[in-house]
Amino acid sequence: MERVYNFSAGPAMLPEAVLEEAARELVNYKGTGMSVMEMSHRSSSYDQIHQDTQDLLRELMNIPDHYEILFLQGGASTQFAMVPLNLMTQHGKADYILTGNWAKKAYDEAVRYGDVAIAASSKDANFTYIPNMAEVTFRDEIDYVHICSNNTIYGTRFRPDNLPQTGDVPLVADMSSNILSEVYDVNDFGLIYAGAQKNMGPAGLTVVIIDKALIQEPQPSTPTMLTYKTHADKNSLYNTPPTYTIYMTKLVLEWLKDLGGVEAMAKINQEKADLLYDFIDQSDFYRSAVTAKDDRSLMNIPFLTPNADLDAQFVKEAAINGLHTLKGHRNVGGLRASIYNAMPIEGVQALVNFMDTFEKNHR
Amino acid sequence: MERVYNFSAGPAMLPEAVLEEAARELVNYKGTGMSVMEMSHRSSSYDQIHQDTQDLLRELMNIPDHYEILFLQGGASTQFAMVPLNLMTQHGKADYILTGNWAKKAYDEAVRYGDVAIAASSKDANFTYIPNMAEVTFRDEIDYVHICSNNTIYGTRFRPDNLPQTGDVPLVADMSSNILSEVYDVNDFGLIYAGAQKNMGPAGLTVVIIDKALIQEPQPSTPTMLTYKTHADKNSLYNTPPTYTIYMTKLVLEWLKDLGGVEAMAKINQEKADLLYDFIDQSDFYRSAVTAKDDRSLMNIPFLTPNADLDAQFVKEAAINGLHTLKGHRNVGGLRASIYNAMPIEGVQALVNFMDTFEKNHR
Repeated sequence: MERVYNFSAGPAMLPEAVLEEAARELVNYKGTGMSVMEMSHRSSSYDQIHQDTQDLLRELMNIPDHYEILFLQGGASTQFAMVPLNLMTQHGKADYILTGNWAKKAYDEAVRYGDVAIAASSKDANFTYIPNMAEVTFRDEIDYVHICSNNTIYGTRFRPDNLPQTGDVPLVADMSSNILSEVYDVNDFGLIYAGAQKNMGPAGLTVVIIDKALIQEPQPSTPTMLTYKTHADKNSLYNTPPTYTIYMTKLVLEWLKDLGGVEAMAKINQEKADLLYDFIDQSDFYRSAVTAKDDRSLMNIPFLTPNADLDAQFVKEAAINGLHTLKGHRNVGGLRASIYNAMPIEGVQALVNFMDTFEKNHR
Repeated sequence: MERVYNFSAGPAMLPEAVLEEAARELVNYKGTGMSVMEMSHRSSSYDQIHQDTQDLLRELMNIPDHYEILFLQGGASTQFAMVPLNLMTQHGKADYILTGNWAKKAYDEAVRYGDVAIAASSKDANFTYIPNMAEVTFRDEIDYVHICSNNTIYGTRFRPDNLPQTGDVPLVADMSSNILSEVYDVNDFGLIYAGAQKNMGPAGLTVVIIDKALIQEPQPSTPTMLTYKTHADKNSLYNTPPTYTIYMTKLVLEWLKDLGGVEAMAKINQEKADLLYDFIDQSDFYRSAVTAKDDRSLMNIPFLTPNADLDAQFVKEAAINGLHTLKGHRNVGGLRASIYNAMPIEGVQALVNFMDTFEKNHR
């Protein structure tokens, strides 16, 4: 069987060229006589991979030198605790913006560690839009403001020109599902975190980009491994990092660089998203719940057929046609196409073609 | 270049047959049209891998049904906090046995979360032996006793017949560097944890085997992700697990099962260790710091030449001869051969042959 188009929300498609390269050098990496999986994390061969991955990410995202890049484990879910434990230390206060499920989970964990308030929310319309940040204000003396930049389940995202205006207060973003997909200015953030398994590599790596000024003593009783300083002091080699996952991320970043970097990728992503949104919008069979068009995610596109039975039928028939994992998240139902960086435009075109046929057969 | 013998303490060698199988199915796993790296952790294809890996480990280690097998992230270092946070909840007390560097690290983290005492230590002889457990007693009303079953740096291990006699008190073991290498009775333990990157797979997975009776409310303010209950309730799918690393572990466990299981592996490991120890002991050029022969590790074998210059020379010449990563840990100096399950006996024989030649050339 040939490779399929996989619309999974994560773990998700990786570039085929990257997988082929990984397969070629899996048993014996560049004449070292061993797999990357087998290398000591203290060896010079691995060290080069570690450093190259950091350098590539710094270059691709234009990360200034006063930010540290950390390679951690435990997913964004672990960051939900690490962020308050490490950052909510001066005032014991933080403001969160709720635009979906993951933003809410981050908030729920943070309230356990301090005085946390909701500065804005789009719950009133089932998270189908992003509040206008020009109108959002924050409390005095807070340690940070937290957002989830892209809402995987509801299909919305903070446009780079609609970020919270936090002044001197650090802005923290969970960018798990849209990091490297369009150009954000890292200078707008104090801390960015992202699980690798959507736009960077396999599951098991969490990238943290943190302003060095924020690397301070955490709340007392914070586990050593949940302290940013532990990892920053040792260049993410305090203990054994997920070496192979970092290597895979390096290959993906090289692929992205060869393709022209984030700006070029953003253009392609916009084309891919337009293709699908335009088709949905012109149809009276399919519809998007996200009516705030400017806030639509370029990565996760939920949509609906006229009823739940047809949704289920769609998932089934699509899979037979090589279009996989299109079922919507249980919170919203319907369908969802996740079209991360590695999804080729041919995959989106194939989906649109299938949608067209399905509509004709079932309307 | 051919594959080399890699004596790294971890990440370490993986069976070549496993690497070849992984390479073959990396781009397209068993006709699914996608890589395991790309599979949704909620998909049936991945679910089968997840379940198979658990089942294989349960079979190989004879894990009774009243133990839960968890797939976590963050390495043994994260367990150093999770164990006290989750288990030191009834009496707020635990006893630790210090037999090396990692046991000490576990202790250092635990003292932050309760009343922790050292029940026994081999620090008096630079950790070159394991105290006789028949003579070790514990405090009353403690929540658990903690050991590190194999000391990667110092080259000692708790024999299965020299475990702490803790009665009703749960015994907790960091088995990172000798899990699956010889037969331990899981019933002797309340909790076993192990990083995968020595005997199970690539770095980035931590296996926890825990008596279900110990899965309780943790200390207040324990991060959700550092709570065993979080993961046990969701079969280690609370958030995205390190799916590919789990898959690699499955392949290694299948290899181990095909080879005859842990008992057969233990016999081979004993042969491999005997080959090297016998050579060291008969030599008046090389020596082992671990004079307590019964306590010697089967996995990590530190040894010394007559002086530090020759040690350095040895590492250099060995590498030229395809024998890699033989430098001792900075805490003890000298040399170290880590001969985990995946190191073939041919590798140990090649090392002994080289040692013989080196001795003749440099004595």
